[in-house]
Amino acid sequence: QRRGVPEAIFAEGKSIPQVVALAETALETTGRALLTRVSDPQFAALEDYVAETTPDATIHRHSGAVRVVTADYEPPSLEATVGIATGGTVDEAVADEAEAVCLDAGATVDRVDDVGVAALSRTLDQLDRFRDADVMIVAAGREGALPTVVAGLVDTPVIGVPVSSGYGYGGDGEAALAGMLQSCTVLSVVNVDAGFVAGAQATLIAQAIATARD
Amino acid sequence: QRRGVPEAIFAEGKSIPQVVALAETALETTGRALLTRVSDPQFAALEDYVAETTPDATIHRHSGAVRVVTADYEPPSLEATVGIATGGTVDEAVADEAEAVCLDAGATVDRVDDVGVAALSRTLDQLDRFRDADVMIVAAGREGALPTVVAGLVDTPVIGVPVSSGYGYGGDGEAALAGMLQSCTVLSVVNVDAGFVAGAQATLIAQAIATARD
Amino acid sequence: QRRGVPEAIFAEGKSIPQVVALAETALETTGRALLTRVSDPQFAALEDYVAETTPDATIHRHSGAVRVVTADYEPPSLEATVGIATGGTVDEAVADEAEAVCLDAGATVDRVDDVGVAALSRTLDQLDRFRDADVMIVAAGREGALPTVVAGLVDTPVIGVPVSSGYGYGGDGEAALAGMLQSCTVLSVVNVDAGFVAGAQATLIAQAIATARD
Amino acid sequence: QRRGVPEAIFAEGKSIPQVVALAETALETTGRALLTRVSDPQFAALEDYVAETTPDATIHRHSGAVRVVTADYEPPSLEATVGIATGGTVDEAVADEAEAVCLDAGATVDRVDDVGVAALSRTLDQLDRFRDADVMIVAAGREGALPTVVAGLVDTPVIGVPVSSGYGYGGDGEAALAGMLQSCTVLSVVNVDAGFVAGAQATLIAQAIATARD
Amino acid sequence: QRRGVPEAIFAEGKSIPQVVALAETALETTGRALLTRVSDPQFAALEDYVAETTPDATIHRHSGAVRVVTADYEPPSLEATVGIATGGTVDEAVADEAEAVCLDAGATVDRVDDVGVAALSRTLDQLDRFRDADVMIVAAGREGALPTVVAGLVDTPVIGVPVSSGYGYGGDGEAALAGMLQSCTVLSVVNVDAGFVAGAQATLIAQAIATARD
Amino acid sequence: QRRGVPEAIFAEGKSIPQVVALAETALETTGRALLTRVSDPQFAALEDYVAETTPDATIHRHSGAVRVVTADYEPPSLEATVGIATGGTVDEAVADEAEAVCLDAGATVDRVDDVGVAALSRTLDQLDRFRDADVMIVAAGREGALPTVVAGLVDTPVIGVPVSSGYGYGGDGEAALAGMLQSCTVLSVVNVDAGFVAGAQATLIAQAIATARD
Amino acid sequence: QRRGVPEAIFAEGKSIPQVVALAETALETTGRALLTRVSDPQFAALEDYVAETTPDATIHRHSGAVRVVTADYEPPSLEATVGIATGGTVDEAVADEAEAVCLDAGATVDRVDDVGVAALSRTLDQLDRFRDADVMIVAAGREGALPTVVAGLVDTPVIGVPVSSGYGYGGDGEAALAGMLQSCTVLSVVNVDAGFVAGAQATLIAQAIATARD
Amino acid sequence: QRRGVPEAIFAEGKSIPQVVALAETALETTGRALLTRVSDPQFAALEDYVAETTPDATIHRHSGAVRVVTADYEPPSLEATVGIATGGTVDEAVADEAEAVCLDAGATVDRVDDVGVAALSRTLDQLDRFRDADVMIVAAGREGALPTVVAGLVDTPVIGVPVSSGYGYGGDGEAALAGMLQSCTVLSVVNVDAGFVAGAQATLIAQAIATARD
Ligand SMILES: Nc1ncnc2c1ncn2[C@@H]1O[C@H](COP(=O)(O)O)[C@@H](O)[C@H]1O
Ligand SMILES: Nc1ncnc2c1ncn2[C@@H]1O[C@H](COP(=O)(O)O)[C@@H](O)[C@H]1O
Ligand SMILES: Nc1ncnc2c1ncn2[C@@H]1O[C@H](COP(=O)(O)O)[C@@H](O)[C@H]1O
Ligand SMILES: Nc1ncnc2c1ncn2[C@@H]1O[C@H](COP(=O)(O)O)[C@@H](O)[C@H]1O
Ligand SMILES: [Mg+2]
Ligand SMILES: [Mg+2]
Ligand SMILES: [Mg+2]
Ligand SMILES: [Mg+2]
Ligand SMILES: [Mg+2]
Ligand SMILES: [Mg+2]
Ligand SMILES: [Mg+2]
Ligand SMILES: [Mg+2]
Repeated sequence: QRRGVPEAIFAEGKSIPQVVALAETALETTGRALLTRVSDPQFAALEDYVAETTPDATIHRHSGAVRVVTADYEPPSLEATVGIATGGTVDEAVADEAEAVCLDAGATVDRVDDVGVAALSRTLDQLDRFRDADVMIVAAGREGALPTVVAGLVDTPVIGVPVSSGYGYGGDGEAALAGMLQSCTVLSVVNVDAGFVAGAQATLIAQAIATARD
Repeated sequence: QRRGVPEAIFAEGKSIPQVVALAETALETTGRALLTRVSDPQFAALEDYVAETTPDATIHRHSGAVRVVTADYEPPSLEATVGIATGGTVDEAVADEAEAVCLDAGATVDRVDDVGVAALSRTLDQLDRFRDADVMIVAAGREGALPTVVAGLVDTPVIGVPVSSGYGYGGDGEAALAGMLQSCTVLSVVNVDAGFVAGAQATLIAQAIATARD
Repeated sequence: QRRGVPEAIFAEGKSIPQVVALAETALETTGRALLTRVSDPQFAALEDYVAETTPDATIHRHSGAVRVVTADYEPPSLEATVGIATGGTVDEAVADEAEAVCLDAGATVDRVDDVGVAALSRTLDQLDRFRDADVMIVAAGREGALPTVVAGLVDTPVIGVPVSSGYGYGGDGEAALAGMLQSCTVLSVVNVDAGFVAGAQATLIAQAIATARD
Repeated sequence: QRRGVPEAIFAEGKSIPQVVALAETALETTGRALLTRVSDPQFAALEDYVAETTPDATIHRHSGAVRVVTADYEPPSLEATVGIATGGTVDEAVADEAEAVCLDAGATVDRVDDVGVAALSRTLDQLDRFRDADVMIVAAGREGALPTVVAGLVDTPVIGVPVSSGYGYGGDGEAALAGMLQSCTVLSVVNVDAGFVAGAQATLIAQAIATARD
Repeated sequence: QRRGVPEAIFAEGKSIPQVVALAETALETTGRALLTRVSDPQFAALEDYVAETTPDATIHRHSGAVRVVTADYEPPSLEATVGIATGGTVDEAVADEAEAVCLDAGATVDRVDDVGVAALSRTLDQLDRFRDADVMIVAAGREGALPTVVAGLVDTPVIGVPVSSGYGYGGDGEAALAGMLQSCTVLSVVNVDAGFVAGAQATLIAQAIATARD
Repeated sequence: QRRGVPEAIFAEGKSIPQVVALAETALETTGRALLTRVSDPQFAALEDYVAETTPDATIHRHSGAVRVVTADYEPPSLEATVGIATGGTVDEAVADEAEAVCLDAGATVDRVDDVGVAALSRTLDQLDRFRDADVMIVAAGREGALPTVVAGLVDTPVIGVPVSSGYGYGGDGEAALAGMLQSCTVLSVVNVDAGFVAGAQATLIAQAIATARD
Repeated sequence: QRRGVPEAIFAEGKSIPQVVALAETALETTGRALLTRVSDPQFAALEDYVAETTPDATIHRHSGAVRVVTADYEPPSLEATVGIATGGTVDEAVADEAEAVCLDAGATVDRVDDVGVAALSRTLDQLDRFRDADVMIVAAGREGALPTVVAGLVDTPVIGVPVSSGYGYGGDGEAALAGMLQSCTVLSVVNVDAGFVAGAQATLIAQAIATARD
Repeated sequence: QRRGVPEAIFAEGKSIPQVVALAETALETTGRALLTRVSDPQFAALEDYVAETTPDATIHRHSGAVRVVTADYEPPSLEATVGIATGGTVDEAVADEAEAVCLDAGATVDRVDDVGVAALSRTLDQLDRFRDADVMIVAAGREGALPTVVAGLVDTPVIGVPVSSGYGYGGDGEAALAGMLQSCTVLSVVNVDAGFVAGAQATLIAQAIATARD
């Protein structure tokens, strides 16, 4: 039986009517809709649409990612925990996108922000939470060293997400991506800012673990 | 309790005495040694060393990766299956390195070679095996489309490994890496030719699943 | 006797009066005008100009490409079919530009949208149409695997068009271009988003085939 | 009925026994073998093998490409002409590879060497031959301007092949590839040094034309 | 005695008051001002300033380059001709900048536009003018082949100027720069869009020739 | 009074007689010679030369860097400590080159090897030594995170040296350089493998501190 | 006792309320705030906030960098001089950022502007000031040769800061960064436009020297 | 009357018999031969060939460039001086190639070596010779600042030649090329190591000046 990755609507570059129409179809056929890279005007239109048509639905916003759930939607339940860590403020929107995907799939998310390597003791304080997660997503920009430091300290599989911060040479996430691919610990990696892919891959791993738990 | 990734010796660029000495230490302290990127002369020296010092030890060669196991070594057992698929002949050495890591950790490996997208029906014939694996490693060079095609057809988490084949623009695995990071399905990725990292990450995921099975 | 590629006006970066003047010249000397990369304000000015000066002319819009045909223009006829396939929504504007060139030359166009490799069965369903085309244009962004998959299944010559979609490493069509140049099947390629060039090259091939048919 | 691209063996990076074994299989199953990127020792071994096992077979060498044809092989016949032009001496090996593929498929090849743009009158002298071809392959290194100049003067579809010559910035075929993709005339392009792909794509186009001629 | 390159003010990124103040100083100390990369609002402010303060001065606009000359300014005289050729419309603004520098130094400029290699006969028609120039500037975008074609046909020293046109791989002048640096004829080159540098270098060469003429 | 950076001979790419002659001049004029990137045959020739001509001179080898000191040479004394740390075995040769420069200038060197971030506790154990140094050089390859981690924990100025290790994307020191330039702590950086420059810059800083101590 | 680098708030990409809140916290906890990359609207809001809440505080603006100091703040005192030199007008904002950091730490700053290598005598005139500084920051764009020229003439340690000026190949600071990393003199380098990092590193060096002076 | 650039044979990548045959043709038809990038074995074969066939011919070697002149060859005379300057030892072979071309055309060459910017006073000492040249070629590797410094001090037109020295980021001449294209003085540039092109362009300029002198 396939469960797969939650379907998501990539809103960037689409018109407001297109986004609303796609959300409408998702809600009508599945009782829920997951959208990523939603702009403020797109979000406002979504809110209006939901308020008018299904006022008892719930809207969750995770930076650019948006989950809409109708009142009678039965969310999947996934008995596994995805740990998510970020280095600094700029990494949070990307981690939010990953979190939205995991929550949408029913996983428990344990989120730890602002533990970048420039203040290493804050990172070390969270090791137990990192070790308790079934799989971890670690998002970091600039030099992107956080996933390497975390993966060196835990047995949990770590997915690194480079974030498009930083200026000059290696900016916009390029140094972070290169650093994660060169990591002297064990990481697998997704593209720069690809919170959705990290969340979806973590979900697939969490589903495999939850199935094994049954 | 941490189990972690099997320790490996990166032989490339090391002298023959260095490689033998590192293998000696590993064998004496753990009863086994795992080496990657072992050249032919390094391998010959390893064989000689083992024949002289521990003649009842076993040597397994997986292209450049080498596992040495003493007679009384009790290998770990890992109740989980790692699927490994390759597109063509050039991808096999990289997959062999990944396989060596998984086997060293005690995982079951289900290996499928020569299912590149230029002959799509061969790929489609193997879907059931891909679906039965707990986690998959898919190695591909040139345009690197195979992990995308596989991940689109199965729920198994897929780790893509770009292989340094191809000439001209995007050669040496660059197009494959870029293509896997841009995949329109869900993949996480390791660096070009990083069979070791793919095998180690698959091992961590397999261990999490096996633990859940208990 | 040379027939060549239909002349086209590249509107991007030109002022509205320049674009209108170039269209005017084309209409007066040849009875038709083909423009690419036409913006909304440029299009509005073209419509106004045509409405005022040659109200019985017809305007066809294909995303940014625009064909204007006067009432007494005798379109060329080209007894050959150009197949055009796209992977997803973002590829359609580029394919529209290619289609405009082929139609302008009198070719029959058989267009198939939304057959990206993430949903492979939809691709496989269209194989007969791909095989019946005399030459194919396949547009794809992100990892750009669709032209490879199509070319592996048909004898029709395939021209790959990378589309500037995707973010992060290999984004903006770079991975797609690299992947098509590295394809393990047989493709020739045009630049990223070069729908015009793909359409023009397909037209030259279609003309050679149509001439041979005579 | 599919005819497709002639099967070829990519010899680069394979051992001599592997190359001979692959050629053996090809000869036994189809009566012919086409190999590309064959080194001198690989070629010598092929000659020896053929002399011993099938002494009445014929070996054709086109730089690195090699065609072996048994005495009773019935070559395909393809009623169409592929024109091939090169800019200078360094481009000839790549053109030879393309030529081998076309000849193997039974096409007529009309080859013109040493017509680089630095001596433009030599290029202009050959226009009639370029116009008479059904499809053209133009190979050029350094700045790679020859395909652009040719395509501006003829209606024949032109496939540009960048050649890995030149030193410094844009060397190794990079400037040639970029220049062909940016051409202000109409070209489709293959990767740097990809004579095989150019020959195979020209073959597919020639087959479509020849079929139309029937 | 040094004559050197005419001093110019690089207006891009400067505020309107800064630009006007710099022009004022130049006019007061030398009786003339040369500015490059002047925007429309900067130009309007310059016109206003001149109209108010030195109404009998003359303003010459060459795309973004602007020369202001007071009534009693005695322009230098330079007995030499700089030939300037462009491939297409997009190259003209860059050539205009080069032309402004040459004219400001008193050189004669012989300008030929729209002789790109896609319509080679127009290029060949101008050979005598190219041969009569003392030094040539040839500006071209996209694949940038024009300077190569011209330099192959004349003994005049040719300075190539790549122009930032074209999209996709090698766009924004990159292919043109690479192609000119790889030229199989003899060229020296300036940076992409560096009309000023080309004009200044041509001026230095023209001055050396004019001095020799004395 | 200028003291400056010790003069060094860059041996790479020079012939053995050239290297010996340059060392001879240095020894004769200053009583010492410092050479970098010395190959094994170059070193053997240096040893022979010294043994023959100045048998009481001392030769110090630091990987590729070589210091020769005659018996009556009075070494400079520099009352300051340069700390040097490396991540792993591959970083040691680059650190050796830096160390040779510092020692040649008379500085005290406090060297700590093998404290890469994959085994963070070993790094943390050395903090007191790092804090006691007057200036630090930290060499690291692969993802190059060590200088960032160290600089986040100490007030000592840290100079990062990327090392050309690692394969695939970001290999050969590219990721390490980019990561150090993007560091979220405070670092200044030298080029990949530029141990000499790091040592010389540290020497200049140490000299400034030692002068202040007087 | 650690003194470290002054804490700074990176304002770019933050909302006005976020910036004001971060400044508020800094002011309340330390009596001062240092911000970098502050936009005009962010600055206006900061001014309003300070005027309202702590009207006797002082605001210093150094291009995008802003220092706010309350009336009773006791600034640190640092007995050392940081020399700062720039090549041209475009380099000044980056140097201003560096200067703000040094001043905030209590260092004396000796600033020299407009001494670019195109007018070498102006550079040479300032050598005594460069030699008197304890550490130097040299900011330069375009080809970035100034730090090399300065470091060749003085014993002061020089930190090079590439500035994102210039267009075409090597523009946006890329040539300057590469040139400083390739310098044939002794430099350490920070990223393009990283005035903050240069200032902070110079501060750490100045602090070490000042401590030694005690 | 065209005089043009001396014909040269590019020996790199050609076999010894090919090189000898091309030299033979040149000697027989023109009485001289100019070859570039000649390897040691190629040079030995040339010497043997000349000794046997035309023992009274003269061979001049300029690093990889070789001029052969028969006894009765009447060299062209060119009344103009080409100045050539280099920064350091590694630049000399490239300058030698340029010099060979200029001498072959009959120009006077004024050569100044080892005046790199790290020892600026040596550069400044040569200004009069630089000013007396009719045109200058300046070759420099690493950061490539020498042509910029020279061009800022003289009115002579300067052609910059980047040299493929340096390691790490911007190595192999990339920083030098970028720096010369970004120069804040007036330069035109040839490709990395393109001594031949620099010499040929300087020759064309020298010919124009010499003609004007008549
Ligand atoms: N083929 C490989 N690719 C990447 N990392 C490897 C590889 N083989 C071993 N390693 C890692 O490198 C470490 C050994 O490096 P070394 O100390 O140089 O032998 C091991 O602990 C592994 O984490
Ligand atoms: N979208 C396009 N991409 C590339 N080339 C184009 C495009 N549209 C038109 N062209 C070519 O550009 C020429 C017109 O360029 P222009 O003179 O700038 O209008 C046409 O003759 C075509 O060869
Ligand atoms: N202009 C700058 N460039 C680089 N790093 C900076 C800059 N300004 C502040 N920082 C660093 O970034 C940190 C603040 O980042 P944030 O938390 O995003 O405000 C500070 O502690 C500094 O270390
Ligand atoms: N070192 C060189 N760099 C660039 N072009 C050269 C060089 N030497 C010769 N050439 C050019 O290459 C042509 C000869 O090329 P080939 O036919 O390969 O010998 C000559 O006519 C020159 O225009
Ligand atoms: Mg781990
Ligand atoms: Mg899947
Ligand atoms: Mg096919
Ligand atoms: Mg054509
Ligand atoms: Mg010429
Ligand atoms: Mg620190
Ligand atoms: Mg210095
Ligand atoms: Mg000058």
